[in-house]
Amino acid sequence: MERHLFEADHDAFRETARAFCDKEIVPHHESWEEAGIVPRELWTAAGDAGLLGFMIPQEYGGGGARDFRFNTVVIEEITKARASGPGFSIHADLVSGYLLDYATEEQKQRWLPKFCSGETITAIAMTEPGAGSDLQGIQTTAIRDGDHYVLNGQKTFISNGILADLVIVVAKTDPAAGYQGISLLVVERGMDGFERGRNLDKIGLKAQDTSELFFDDVRVPAANLLGEEGKGFIYLMEKLPQERLTIAVVAAAACEGMLETTLRYVKERTAFGRPIGSFQNSRFVLAELATETQIARVFVDRCIEELNAGKLTVSDAAMAKWWTTELQKKVADRCLQLFGGYGFMTEYPIAKAYLDTRIQTIYGGTTEIMKEIIGRTMGI
Amino acid sequence: MERHLFEADHDAFRETARAFCDKEIVPHHESWEEAGIVPRELWTAAGDAGLLGFMIPQEYGGGGARDFRFNTVVIEEITKARASGPGFSIHADLVSGYLLDYATEEQKQRWLPKFCSGETITAIAMTEPGAGSDLQGIQTTAIRDGDHYVLNGQKTFISNGILADLVIVVAKTDPAAGYQGISLLVVERGMDGFERGRNLDKIGLKAQDTSELFFDDVRVPAANLLGEEGKGFIYLMEKLPQERLTIAVVAAAACEGMLETTLRYVKERTAFGRPIGSFQNSRFVLAELATETQIARVFVDRCIEELNAGKLTVSDAAMAKWWTTELQKKVADRCLQLFGGYGFMTEYPIAKAYLDTRIQTIYGGTTEIMKEIIGRTMGI
Amino acid sequence: MERHLFEADHDAFRETARAFCDKEIVPHHESWEEAGIVPRELWTAAGDAGLLGFMIPQEYGGGGARDFRFNTVVIEEITKARASGPGFSIHADLVSGYLLDYATEEQKQRWLPKFCSGETITAIAMTEPGAGSDLQGIQTTAIRDGDHYVLNGQKTFISNGILADLVIVVAKTDPAAGYQGISLLVVERGMDGFERGRNLDKIGLKAQDTSELFFDDVRVPAANLLGEEGKGFIYLMEKLPQERLTIAVVAAAACEGMLETTLRYVKERTAFGRPIGSFQNSRFVLAELATETQIARVFVDRCIEELNAGKLTVSDAAMAKWWTTELQKKVADRCLQLFGGYGFMTEYPIAKAYLDTRIQTIYGGTTEIMKEIIGRTMGI
Amino acid sequence: MERHLFEADHDAFRETARAFCDKEIVPHHESWEEAGIVPRELWTAAGDAGLLGFMIPQEYGGGGARDFRFNTVVIEEITKARASGPGFSIHADLVSGYLLDYATEEQKQRWLPKFCSGETITAIAMTEPGAGSDLQGIQTTAIRDGDHYVLNGQKTFISNGILADLVIVVAKTDPAAGYQGISLLVVERGMDGFERGRNLDKIGLKAQDTSELFFDDVRVPAANLLGEEGKGFIYLMEKLPQERLTIAVVAAAACEGMLETTLRYVKERTAFGRPIGSFQNSRFVLAELATETQIARVFVDRCIEELNAGKLTVSDAAMAKWWTTELQKKVADRCLQLFGGYGFMTEYPIAKAYLDTRIQTIYGGTTEIMKEIIGRTMGI
Ligand SMILES: Cc1cc2nc3c(=O)[nH]c(=O)nc-3n(C[C@H](O)[C@H](O)[C@H](O)COP(=O)(O)OP(=O)(O)OC[C@H]3O[C@@H](n4cnc5c(N)ncnc54)[C@H](O)[C@@H]3O)c2cc1C
Ligand SMILES: Cc1cc2nc3c(=O)[nH]c(=O)nc-3n(C[C@H](O)[C@H](O)[C@H](O)COP(=O)(O)OP(=O)(O)OC[C@H]3O[C@@H](n4cnc5c(N)ncnc54)[C@H](O)[C@@H]3O)c2cc1C
Ligand SMILES: Cc1cc2nc3c(=O)[nH]c(=O)nc-3n(C[C@H](O)[C@H](O)[C@H](O)COP(=O)(O)OP(=O)(O)OC[C@H]3O[C@@H](n4cnc5c(N)ncnc54)[C@H](O)[C@@H]3O)c2cc1C
Ligand SMILES: Cc1cc2nc3c(=O)[nH]c(=O)nc-3n(C[C@H](O)[C@H](O)[C@H](O)COP(=O)(O)OP(=O)(O)OC[C@H]3O[C@@H](n4cnc5c(N)ncnc54)[C@H](O)[C@@H]3O)c2cc1C
Repeated sequence: MERHLFEADHDAFRETARAFCDKEIVPHHESWEEAGIVPRELWTAAGDAGLLGFMIPQEYGGGGARDFRFNTVVIEEITKARASGPGFSIHADLVSGYLLDYATEEQKQRWLPKFCSGETITAIAMTEPGAGSDLQGIQTTAIRDGDHYVLNGQKTFISNGILADLVIVVAKTDPAAGYQGISLLVVERGMDGFERGRNLDKIGLKAQDTSELFFDDVRVPAANLLGEEGKGFIYLMEKLPQERLTIAVVAAAACEGMLETTLRYVKERTAFGRPIGSFQNSRFVLAELATETQIARVFVDRCIEELNAGKLTVSDAAMAKWWTTELQKKVADRCLQLFGGYGFMTEYPIAKAYLDTRIQTIYGGTTEIMKEIIGRTMGI
Repeated sequence: MERHLFEADHDAFRETARAFCDKEIVPHHESWEEAGIVPRELWTAAGDAGLLGFMIPQEYGGGGARDFRFNTVVIEEITKARASGPGFSIHADLVSGYLLDYATEEQKQRWLPKFCSGETITAIAMTEPGAGSDLQGIQTTAIRDGDHYVLNGQKTFISNGILADLVIVVAKTDPAAGYQGISLLVVERGMDGFERGRNLDKIGLKAQDTSELFFDDVRVPAANLLGEEGKGFIYLMEKLPQERLTIAVVAAAACEGMLETTLRYVKERTAFGRPIGSFQNSRFVLAELATETQIARVFVDRCIEELNAGKLTVSDAAMAKWWTTELQKKVADRCLQLFGGYGFMTEYPIAKAYLDTRIQTIYGGTTEIMKEIIGRTMGI
Repeated sequence: MERHLFEADHDAFRETARAFCDKEIVPHHESWEEAGIVPRELWTAAGDAGLLGFMIPQEYGGGGARDFRFNTVVIEEITKARASGPGFSIHADLVSGYLLDYATEEQKQRWLPKFCSGETITAIAMTEPGAGSDLQGIQTTAIRDGDHYVLNGQKTFISNGILADLVIVVAKTDPAAGYQGISLLVVERGMDGFERGRNLDKIGLKAQDTSELFFDDVRVPAANLLGEEGKGFIYLMEKLPQERLTIAVVAAAACEGMLETTLRYVKERTAFGRPIGSFQNSRFVLAELATETQIARVFVDRCIEELNAGKLTVSDAAMAKWWTTELQKKVADRCLQLFGGYGFMTEYPIAKAYLDTRIQTIYGGTTEIMKEIIGRTMGI
Repeated sequence: MERHLFEADHDAFRETARAFCDKEIVPHHESWEEAGIVPRELWTAAGDAGLLGFMIPQEYGGGGARDFRFNTVVIEEITKARASGPGFSIHADLVSGYLLDYATEEQKQRWLPKFCSGETITAIAMTEPGAGSDLQGIQTTAIRDGDHYVLNGQKTFISNGILADLVIVVAKTDPAAGYQGISLLVVERGMDGFERGRNLDKIGLKAQDTSELFFDDVRVPAANLLGEEGKGFIYLMEKLPQERLTIAVVAAAACEGMLETTLRYVKERTAFGRPIGSFQNSRFVLAELATETQIARVFVDRCIEELNAGKLTVSDAAMAKWWTTELQKKVADRCLQLFGGYGFMTEYPIAKAYLDTRIQTIYGGTTEIMKEIIGRTMGI
């Protein structure tokens, strides 16, 4: 089934993104996996190519195209290139929205130009060692003291944690006020008392830096408050659907990619004198995965349209998130199996895809939390 | 998520269809279930209401709206009314296409007016006791003898088998020529040697007549050949996608219907002092079903658009067919479970829905055959 | 894998049971299905054959063999004969335990002889319209008044409800005392104010009578109290493991039966010029079902040994119950599918098996309640 | 449910094995994972502790206890210690059987003493780059030339491939004779033309060496032929059930281990003010896994008894293999999910367990091949 989502501009942008992946990412990814991180130069190159700031108004150095289809193009090309290292998505698909919608004019001028150029790498830090699913349970505090907030606490599992120059930190400015006491503060590289932990060793996403962040009496200028004090939780609720859809976009593209790779393999690999794809079991497995991938594709594309139209509900995003990522897990598992012993060898792309896949049902809100959200919308 | 499929005309037609169901079907369905069949009067009433011939050009007494969205409207309303008895779909969604696309002008004039009015009830007979999935394996023969074909053989599981006045019979006009020897013949009530077996006793679809048909030297006039001799198999291949999509449309609507009923139930029924819907397991089960039903809905609607645009591929239709019907089975099973003991009582709608559901993955091509088709399209 | 469970005595008893099924049940079952009930004569014939009282001491007219392997033999033969109508199991596998362990000597002498002969048919009534899973939520009361209890309330879904002469009724003798106020009373046919509702129409178990029971100021003699007042809930907890294992024994035997029938079918039925069993998908499906059925068999046999040794825990019984019945559902569904259209015809045994199967995950405690129990044992 | 399998001797042996794991393995495993291999000293230490040769007659330096329950004890202790590095199982559970049953007296004297002491590490090489599932498709040849066989070919995925001193190589001594031309040759470290490839980089089993082996005109003395020429395939068929059961024993123990770890975690970790284990979804997931793990345990133990009695069929072993390893995958996946983000961190044992698990459904014969075998036994 043909996709109806894109127009000529998106197709052109896709060419740019694909060329960038081919040239700047693919040849180096393996060495980045060993390093556990990508180089800063990759980010500035991406900035030059227009892949980081396309959604930012031109006045701040961006492309002026706030249309999630452009985000989709980049996500898809990166996913198809199996480039799980570069944390562009956190920056361009998540943080961008917070800065565009909640930053003041002054903040925009201060942050956005380098956001677009890739000189400033961003992150968003919600999760703490003791609170992930339960965001209201965070314990990081930011107590107002004159023109500053004094920030104390610890975050963990922060994507781009090592590279980030600018981190949106979720903290309690009024610890007694429950979710209404939560605010967003922008912490910048170099502020006193802001330290990073080690780069965590993960099952997959080997070239992506994920780390702990420590805040010890960090004096964050009040001018770095994002939006209004006490509205942080509401902002998160507003932005989480887009984050979840982003993950679903990755999932759909990953399924397509794995399926393609596997289809090629089962046509070539033989056993018992026949291509292994010709065994009825293989055919049925692949037919099943192809069906569900196609269905995911149609649904995700539809969700992108809804998002662009400002109509993607919290529940729809949750549906897209859990279903496509659980599908991705299934596709990864079934495809790996079709590779036999080779599937277990990390030099095979399907093995890496399998490893990268496992986080998808966890971050951005677990499958369980998604079902809670949907259930609540249904009134139960 | 709002549906985008329909326009004002369809909505108006839905009102008609719904009113018809409420008035002419719902109050009587239970008694028809006992009878194992619906009365002929129901068909003429449906004809009067415009539910049978809307897709037939006005010159033959129809509504002139060949747009599958109208078919969708009727299917959905009947499904939501849980009216599994009336075999309108065979007539309006399947047979209609054959008559419109392959009948000669003379045949159209002969058959279509009463097709629209409901005076002529139709059926299509492919399956035989010895050949279902493997259509090319049929043994019914129609040997040309002057102006007639002499038809011999047996069909089984024919929907509308008892009521039908006009049956499209798939037969071998050239038994040696493989699939190229298959033709479609229209057999009419009253032809000598055409007998019906008993109305088969089924797990569900209790008010729908399904029967064997016997052909013993039936002399079918050559003027009743549909389309060209030897092209029958190709015609079937052309029309099966629409048949399969029809079944998927039923499936999606049935899922929505069951979910709604169940959601209502779990909010009212209590155990351990709480509505049973409030147990997390119930919530998660329903969130999962709601997600998949929503995803099915979006996919089916998209397939309807493709069909209307003449672009629904054999593979897409097969995907829609197997996936939505397997989903329907899952929804029926999980919902019934939430009713506890009551789910096992046939007076409860969920019990009937469960029973009607089980055929869906079988007729119109089994899930296994669908996967074969999809696999073949993938080149494996 | 050979079974190790049985000894010569059990094998001999199996011959008796099988002969009884072949002669007294199989030829009549279909007509009983139409009647919705089995005749009383079947019960006395079963009594004569020793199938009802084998576990009762000889002094009361029984066989004196309280060894659950004998129960197993009868359950298996009845299941393999697909004789879902006769409610012997309620009587011989469930009620027997209550009478043997909690009845006084006087009660035993009064009730057991006819229990063994089949003149007295028994039932046990826990469930009410408003309380099934939540047994403590029952509202039937039995208030002591002199030598009697005055019983008021309503039960539903009672197996053998129409035939039963003697019903163990769960009631609150002290409504304020929570589970410690629950007692068991034996209500007998003919007591004033004890009425039965209609024989309920069910998805399956067509020949088994299931009905509502009404108690309107029934004066039950105190001599009909079973065990101690206030201990009813504890008695139920003690006996439920055996009831659940009974259901698991049915499930395992049913899986074996369906598998056998289906295996025969797929070897005979052909499509595309080959037995349908020879398609790899059929082979894999059946291999999967055969594996799980075998595993269920080994586990159930082991549980029977544990029960006989007095060591079957509540949690083990719950595991056996939910897992084997969910498996039975899967086996029924997959096997039916392999029958194609024939699977939907009630004249095919697989269709009836499918219908009978659906209650198994519900009665005796739903799958959900089983998981609750197991989870609690795990300390969560 | 208590296990009935073991006697006092096995329990005592378990103490030895456990102590060995605690002292010699656990403290070092992480460094071995980095090295990708375990040190030879570990093997001699294991030999000293009696863990390698317990099944070898005492005359050759072994323990004289050919009873698979001893093997089970070692496998379980190693698995519970999450010590996936040491390839003892290949040696003690697989190769041992070949040497005991097919080696000549002279060969036994030559090989077994150092087999027991751990000075000689063994491997078995069937798989080739072009032939895994389809063993008959191997292309390695061993052509008789006087007192020698000239061995040419390549093997891959060989466990203990780097460490092995003695490798049973499956080769075609008569390439034209199909499976009857296959023989087993023992290739020893240092033979000319025998080279190893690199230690392959895998998803899991990080401390286990797996490698390619190359044979380039290796002159293997005829005295190193194992058993009779041309019987190799039959020997493999005879020994594969034990290999498969070995994998099932690992699977069952791994499930138990993961469940235990996870149960501990969900009782401690809190979210929304409650232990995450107390959410009904967690409880149900764990109840389900506990049930299936228990059922697997009972089945595997029963299979061990059958093996010891010489009655484990090819089909039973295939059932145990595929079912328990698919279960292991499920347990690993569901447990990891319950750890949230921590599950994705390789420092968490559940993450490693997840990685080690994925090979289980592939080696020793894939799930698909197991189903083929079972299906064939069923006559389809
Ligand atoms: C690679 C990686 C990158 C990440 N990047 C970021 C980032 O950039 N920024 C950021 O802020 N965070 C990030 N995260 C954190 C991620 O969002 C959290 O791990 C996730 O939200 C889950 O939280 P948790 O790990 O604390 O799990 P927990 O909340 O402890 O959950 C444990 C388990 O309990 C279940 N559970 C919890 N509540 C319920 C309930 N009510 N009902 C049923 N089940 C429940 C969960 O579903 C889960 O299975 C990242 C994590 C990883 C691993
Ligand atoms: C209520 C009802 C109404 C019906 N209405 C009509 C109607 O109006 N007109 C009409 O012509 N027919 C009708 N049918 C028939 C229906 O289309 C067939 O039953 C269906 O196509 C399956 O054919 P079969 O029953 O012969 O099954 P078979 O073809 O015998 O199939 C048996 C099993 O084998 C499997 N199988 C077959 N081939 C393969 C393969 N290559 N690989 C793997 N598995 C395979 C199937 O999937 C199935 O599980 C109806 C059937 C029912 C029950
Ligand atoms: C054919 C038949 C024969 C029967 N025979 C007998 C008999 O002889 N004697 C007798 O006493 N009873 C009998 N029963 C009743 C049977 O035991 C009950 O139907 C069963 O226990 C479920 O109770 P319920 O129907 O009230 O369902 P409910 O308790 O209303 O449950 C509805 C749904 O909610 C779920 N649910 C309930 N509590 C929880 C929870 N805490 N967490 C998650 N989910 C939950 C259930 O699992 C179920 O899915 C019979 C029933 C049938 C249909
Ligand atoms: C870590 C590791 C350790 C190993 N250790 C050893 C060892 O010590 N010695 C040794 O000899 N080997 C070893 N192996 C090899 C292992 O046994 C093989 O990888 C396995 O048997 C599968 O073979 P393959 O990789 O060639 O897959 P293939 O045979 O190419 O199979 C590919 C896919 O096709 C499927 N398939 C194949 N045939 C059919 C069919 N007829 N019908 C349906 N599907 C089919 C398979 O199930 C699989 O999904 C090891 C492998 C690994 C990864």
